[in-house]
Amino acid sequence: IMWEFRSMSFWRAVFAEFFGTMFFVFIGMGAATRFVSGPHYVLSVAFCFGLAGATIIQSIGHVSGGHINPAVTFAYLVSSQMSLFRAFFYVAAQMSGAVAGAAVLYGVTPGTMRGSLALNKLQPGISLGMATTVEVFLTLQLVVCIFAVTDDRRNGRLGSAALAIGFSITVGHLMGMYYTGAGMNPARSFAPAILTRNFINHWVYWVGPMIGGAVGALLYDFMLFPRMRGLSERLAILKGSRPPEDESQGDTQGEPIELKTQAL
Amino acid sequence: IMWEFRSMSFWRAVFAEFFGTMFFVFIGMGAATRFVSGPHYVLSVAFCFGLAGATIIQSIGHVSGGHINPAVTFAYLVSSQMSLFRAFFYVAAQMSGAVAGAAVLYGVTPGTMRGSLALNKLQPGISLGMATTVEVFLTLQLVVCIFAVTDDRRNGRLGSAALAIGFSITVGHLMGMYYTGAGMNPARSFAPAILTRNFINHWVYWVGPMIGGAVGALLYDFMLFPRMRGLSERLAILKGSRPPEDESQGDTQGEPIELKTQAL
Amino acid sequence: IMWEFRSMSFWRAVFAEFFGTMFFVFIGMGAATRFVSGPHYVLSVAFCFGLAGATIIQSIGHVSGGHINPAVTFAYLVSSQMSLFRAFFYVAAQMSGAVAGAAVLYGVTPGTMRGSLALNKLQPGISLGMATTVEVFLTLQLVVCIFAVTDDRRNGRLGSAALAIGFSITVGHLMGMYYTGAGMNPARSFAPAILTRNFINHWVYWVGPMIGGAVGALLYDFMLFPRMRGLSERLAILKGSRPPEDESQGDTQGEPIELKTQAL
Amino acid sequence: IMWEFRSMSFWRAVFAEFFGTMFFVFIGMGAATRFVSGPHYVLSVAFCFGLAGATIIQSIGHVSGGHINPAVTFAYLVSSQMSLFRAFFYVAAQMSGAVAGAAVLYGVTPGTMRGSLALNKLQPGISLGMATTVEVFLTLQLVVCIFAVTDDRRNGRLGSAALAIGFSITVGHLMGMYYTGAGMNPARSFAPAILTRNFINHWVYWVGPMIGGAVGALLYDFMLFPRMRGLSERLAILKGSRPPEDESQGDTQGEPIELKTQAL
Repeated sequence: IMWEFRSMSFWRAVFAEFFGTMFFVFIGMGAATRFVSGPHYVLSVAFCFGLAGATIIQSIGHVSGGHINPAVTFAYLVSSQMSLFRAFFYVAAQMSGAVAGAAVLYGVTPGTMRGSLALNKLQPGISLGMATTVEVFLTLQLVVCIFAVTDDRRNGRLGSAALAIGFSITVGHLMGMYYTGAGMNPARSFAPAILTRNFINHWVYWVGPMIGGAVGALLYDFMLFPRMRGLSERLAILKGSRPPEDESQGDTQGEPIELKTQAL
Repeated sequence: IMWEFRSMSFWRAVFAEFFGTMFFVFIGMGAATRFVSGPHYVLSVAFCFGLAGATIIQSIGHVSGGHINPAVTFAYLVSSQMSLFRAFFYVAAQMSGAVAGAAVLYGVTPGTMRGSLALNKLQPGISLGMATTVEVFLTLQLVVCIFAVTDDRRNGRLGSAALAIGFSITVGHLMGMYYTGAGMNPARSFAPAILTRNFINHWVYWVGPMIGGAVGALLYDFMLFPRMRGLSERLAILKGSRPPEDESQGDTQGEPIELKTQAL
Repeated sequence: IMWEFRSMSFWRAVFAEFFGTMFFVFIGMGAATRFVSGPHYVLSVAFCFGLAGATIIQSIGHVSGGHINPAVTFAYLVSSQMSLFRAFFYVAAQMSGAVAGAAVLYGVTPGTMRGSLALNKLQPGISLGMATTVEVFLTLQLVVCIFAVTDDRRNGRLGSAALAIGFSITVGHLMGMYYTGAGMNPARSFAPAILTRNFINHWVYWVGPMIGGAVGALLYDFMLFPRMRGLSERLAILKGSRPPEDESQGDTQGEPIELKTQAL
Repeated sequence: IMWEFRSMSFWRAVFAEFFGTMFFVFIGMGAATRFVSGPHYVLSVAFCFGLAGATIIQSIGHVSGGHINPAVTFAYLVSSQMSLFRAFFYVAAQMSGAVAGAAVLYGVTPGTMRGSLALNKLQPGISLGMATTVEVFLTLQLVVCIFAVTDDRRNGRLGSAALAIGFSITVGHLMGMYYTGAGMNPARSFAPAILTRNFINHWVYWVGPMIGGAVGALLYDFMLFPRMRGLSERLAILKGSRPPEDESQGDTQGEPIELKTQAL
């Protein structure tokens, strides 16, 4: 049952999630912890997070799927597209990668310019309910986009899956920065919170994205483009006793060259 | 004759149009109902509507075609690429989705910051004729772009159809926001009008896009890249007695995996 | 020898060039004739011209090649990829399309806000030699990019040819607007000049792009990625007595579904 | 052993690197040596360098691989994907191309507006260690992205390799301009330094990118997506006695139509 544990490609995928989330946080928060203020802030930060996401998903998508986001990993879990075992290690890698990225950023930024290190916080006038709703909606559109562009039942003029996901992150920021600073990713929200020891309302950035991820996965799988799979098949994937797709005949302990949970 | 009515994929497509238009309006208008003013407004809003369109068309294009715009549905109708029956339900889903998205936005935005909820209005100095002309031209280029990138007679280096359509929405905003606030989509224009109960000059945002959509469809179909189809075939498609393309042999009541009216 | 003249696809291509250049000028100059000034001007205009170019090339690339620029048509002529006859009609369509687009823009813009209608002019301190050099370099990079992305000897991860060309227009504006207002397209420069009757230094916007186009074509064809063709073959193409590629067997007077001079 | 030296395609590749780096520097630094200051500076410059990179890689990727960056060439060398001989000529072409591009820019820019000609320098408060770390990280993400999008073992929804690399350059600037002015490319940093004779801290822009390039290559090749090759094979490629991939049977002195070190 622990076939994944013995495979090198599994540990490479876990490392890729660490690596990817570290760079996503380092670059995105580096642009957000700006030294110069001004009205271009939102557009600049939105493109930086979005295009950093696109770059990293291009870089590690074929290794781990390029989740770099616990809410996305949770959505894949809800959709029975990965094992609980893999999901646990992915989220651990994402959390430690995000903290590592924020720590490097902390180190290279002069103390007088660190500000709140791009901490996600509720904008003035936004209540907890408003903020949670916004996080749910923004993560939902991100997860549905990810599921759609990585759906192997499609073909056609899809272009780059990584760029499509990156632009979904960008629009989330273009709208959400005025409300919650745009979390959509608990690892990204957690990193500055722990470094600045500021956990005020931090739960919003976990509850919102997790609900959004789960609802997005269920909406895509049951309403928008149903995938027929029995309960026993779903349970087998979650337990890790078989890979997410049908490649398992005979070589379950071998090393699949291309993992099926990958984003592109 | 009501074969579509009995198909699950038809109702999934209608739901997808509701879902897509809701998110398009929620995100795009959320960025436009800005809390911070400044000269970056036009660029930021133009990218938000455009990239939100691209994201949603990637997400639901394979389910419904990703119209999220009554003017686009009308153009497909004029081009005899969908049935009247389907068009009616698409437009109803788009209108209710847009109102739902605007209502959620209304709910999560503090009253002091709602402004006019990104209502489309004529900019100072713009007459009704000028505004209608601009709406006609901007919707026309959008519809011709949609028809071109979803034309299955083409192949080659097309890239992402969804992104091409998204950027067409972006350029429409980059130009049109100085004139009409950039409608190009009656559902998007209707939603803030009903929530703020402000229907001044609202007809411009219906007449302009509908004319633009119809002219764009005719231009593409008869001038730019003619599609040879007889009148009886066109009528049969409009009446819904046969699907738009030739897949109808035998299984008209089955569930087509990929709908032919889809955008990508 | 006049086989093209008798073909419907030829006249559709000429109409497409008219149509495309009209919209390119209408949208791009519409964003440049801004009503609100501010430091975001360059970025906004650069994206508008670039993404409008991408949208239009997506829309008409399979009809005419999507040149919408006399310098590009000239480059294809220098490269012996189209007949003199076709080139003449393309340029005529581009010039009249550009004037039509500018005229519509003139009509929908209140007199007090028209300014110089986005006229290309030398920025303060820029000499004629500096301006011409900049126009040569910017058009050269555009033409080399167009030749590279439409080169049918390539395959691989090219993505969207139209978007690649659009971004080449964007970078030309991001750099060139500080020097010459960024012409790179004699039709685009001519339209506001005739409407505002201001031809001061107008020759720069013809000489620069034409030299840049010709040098770009020669560089690509003879230095970067040589195409082996004899002189007689080149002359035959220029005279129009045979189509640019080898499809001519037997049906030269027929209607090629996909023209070989097209951009994607 | 000097088979590359006798091949025309080798010299075309060297010319392409000269040509590409010249335009990359001319356009990117042309936008950075801005005449108008303002808060849009970072976003505008980041898109200009990134999209100029994308355009040039589209233009010359099939000729030389489109490195236009000594750190990228060094990364390919560390990964044993090109010969020392080729790498030497590539870097020489990149350095001279960058100086040529900067010289043309110097010539077309009025003296009062040249400023420091977009010289990379440490921003206030940034120490040498901070700056070097930032350059290492930003070049690392660029090189991993380049290796991933040009990896011929992948297939799927990759989209445009050139655009993916361009956006990786863009995010590097969006973050790095606040720290080091964003080098990531010793040729780009060297050109303004020699023209303005200002080599203060110039070593940072060599040491950082070279370390980043080497570490990125090793990470990709040994950790993220290992490529199995023996030491003797690697040495043979470095010495140039065999081409990087297995096409060498028989025609090593012939002219490969598509070079294997190319980027797309």
